[in-house]
Amino acid sequence: MQPRPPLTIWPLHGIPEITAGTDLVDVISQAAGGGLADGDILVVTSKIVSKAEGRFVVADDREDAITAETVRVVASRTLPTGSTTRIVQNRLGIVSAAAGVDASNTPDGTVLLLPEDPDASARTIATGLRERLGVEVGVIVSDTLGRAWREGQTDHAIGAGGVHVFEDLRGGTDAEGRPLVVTMPCVADELAAAADLVKGKAARLPVAVVRGRADLVGSLELPGARSIVRALERDMFRLGADEAYAEGFAAGQAADVGRAP
Amino acid sequence: MQPRPPLTIWPLHGIPEITAGTDLVDVISQAAGGGLADGDILVVTSKIVSKAEGRFVVADDREDAITAETVRVVASRTLPTGSTTRIVQNRLGIVSAAAGVDASNTPDGTVLLLPEDPDASARTIATGLRERLGVEVGVIVSDTLGRAWREGQTDHAIGAGGVHVFEDLRGGTDAEGRPLVVTMPCVADELAAAADLVKGKAARLPVAVVRGRADLVGSLELPGARSIVRALERDMFRLGADEAYAEGFAAGQAADVGRAP
Repeated sequence: MQPRPPLTIWPLHGIPEITAGTDLVDVISQAAGGGLADGDILVVTSKIVSKAEGRFVVADDREDAITAETVRVVASRTLPTGSTTRIVQNRLGIVSAAAGVDASNTPDGTVLLLPEDPDASARTIATGLRERLGVEVGVIVSDTLGRAWREGQTDHAIGAGGVHVFEDLRGGTDAEGRPLVVTMPCVADELAAAADLVKGKAARLPVAVVRGRADLVGSLELPGARSIVRALERDMFRLGADEAYAEGFAAGQAADVGRAP
Repeated sequence: MQPRPPLTIWPLHGIPEITAGTDLVDVISQAAGGGLADGDILVVTSKIVSKAEGRFVVADDREDAITAETVRVVASRTLPTGSTTRIVQNRLGIVSAAAGVDASNTPDGTVLLLPEDPDASARTIATGLRERLGVEVGVIVSDTLGRAWREGQTDHAIGAGGVHVFEDLRGGTDAEGRPLVVTMPCVADELAAAADLVKGKAARLPVAVVRGRADLVGSLELPGARSIVRALERDMFRLGADEAYAEGFAAGQAADVGRAP
């Protein structure tokens, strides 16, 4: 294996406030100022994609908006403070704490939904940048998600265009020549996480460029981030433990009805 | 907020095969060759820490070793192929697919366990490098973990020394001045994920250096990666859905015994 070059990650400065209809290809091209090269991967915060796509909805209550975006409730818990945390699956298949409904940095009385189709958004931006700048770049649309079993959040890929989301090593071998049977690094999530280290939540730095993994950039027909979502039938955590216990309890009671005590 | 400098991540070449008793501070110092600076963060693959600590155990059957390392079975599923996937919590609190038991790149008939105390290992390496080289570096010990709801694996922090594992923004405000109430980026996991992009599973590149987030490097007394593990009472996914359902079903049947049909 050849030595890998260093990876360099930097934020694009000078991205203006994004409003409905802003041409992100235009804005990113100008902010990059000719500084992009073949093989660069742009990690774009979903919030600006949503804003450009006009995904604001009027909502007095963020909770109502979350309910509207929810396909399936995975788990919920009411905290001692009285507020309820809901882990839900949204129409994109993504499991998260608020269905991607964002009420920070939005005008009062509105919330921002996730992009309609983040994979399509990523492909559109990648296509536009490739045509405009003549460089073969990949694009990831990122969102901040919590995790099971671990505190805090990390950025993940919810859209991808022109970039491999997995580095498939399943056919490969380790340094001893034995097959690497189960390893399939989700490089798209790793790229999103890496980019978050330079973007910063509190600043307006919604786009970062990752240079040094040109091997991951490819056809615009590559599978998108939708392929990261685990199918329900393969998912051992499709319900929270309390919710699954309650379902089982009810079924156990019903199954026992009519049985001799 | 000041513009962030670019982040640069590179692998250390020339790390030799690690065996029980290898001095990792020595090996890393030599491979770095004077190229480390204050504020650098080293991400060290747990495998070489385990090897240096002699965490090999003789095991004809990897499954037996997983059982021995398991504190609590979270979920298990037998695949159509007949093999069983077990999601378990190990003595470090980490939930993963095989309790961190590694049978790749190990001598036949042996498996490699996780470091005894990865936070202590990280602190020891950070202390040694700071003393040896006179530079204030942080150290993360990383492992490859699967995730609920998402396919593939990403690298995570299982040990940390001299580096903040969370960037606590809970007291901060967004660009509109509203409080950022729930955001606590797990930067240690993001650093581990970023480093995996240059390390590569199939090569012997077990150490990467991240430069550009010196603000995250600090006291050797900072909380370790153990603080990332969510406490069981806060964990909505402490059991797999099938396992919780089965527990509920049994309880429902038992509760119904003696009730009039």
